[in-house]
Amino acid sequence: MLARGPVRLPVMPPYEHHVFVCENLRDPANERGCCAAKGAEEIRSRLRILSKDAGLKGRVRINTAGCLDQCAHGVAIVVYPEAIWYGAVTVADVDEIFNSHVLGGKPVERLRIPHMR
Amino acid sequence: MLARGPVRLPVMPPYEHHVFVCENLRDPANERGCCAAKGAEEIRSRLRILSKDAGLKGRVRINTAGCLDQCAHGVAIVVYPEAIWYGAVTVADVDEIFNSHVLGGKPVERLRIPHMR
Repeated sequence: MLARGPVRLPVMPPYEHHVFVCENLRDPANERGCCAAKGAEEIRSRLRILSKDAGLKGRVRINTAGCLDQCAHGVAIVVYPEAIWYGAVTVADVDEIFNSHVLGGKPVERLRIPHMR
Repeated sequence: MLARGPVRLPVMPPYEHHVFVCENLRDPANERGCCAAKGAEEIRSRLRILSKDAGLKGRVRINTAGCLDQCAHGVAIVVYPEAIWYGAVTVADVDEIFNSHVLGGKPVERLRIPHMR
């Protein structure tokens, strides 16, 4: 019989990468546009699949976010704690962001929002 | 007449504090509970008022977020880039978080989620 010791609770440190995808929805008549109308949900969904498949639960988290104030540069994504901002992201860019940045630690330079560096 | 030079666009650096308030809503029958049912919207709204009144537009941003996976510790808030996690936040705590942390740079220790340090 195993000795009984203190209960060991799972300890989850802050995420190594916490990814926020803007999914703000504006009235279609609004000239600023919005990330929701540019495929944000599909992007977030694809990121979640990649993260889950890579076994990163508890280490990486993918979240929806309200308006990140980059409407003209949507779909906008910010990754913390490193504060890397991506703009004009399409679902075709997601695997590169995940593989290069989330897995490899190397941000995708071509997608970064210049004024958010 | 003033000499004409290059157009100077406003440059907005990444936010000094980017605050995400979990506003996830679950079915009331779900035992985990959810932040939306614990006053998350009022908390986010109060944070926005405080930030606006302090003239911090462009330096501090307050956003809603999807589920931050701290349902039992809601309302949950995370502040980046410093990755400070708060739990069981009520609207009565908001002014202290804003004044101490956002304005003063000193996190409110009593509200931090222990396993997210």
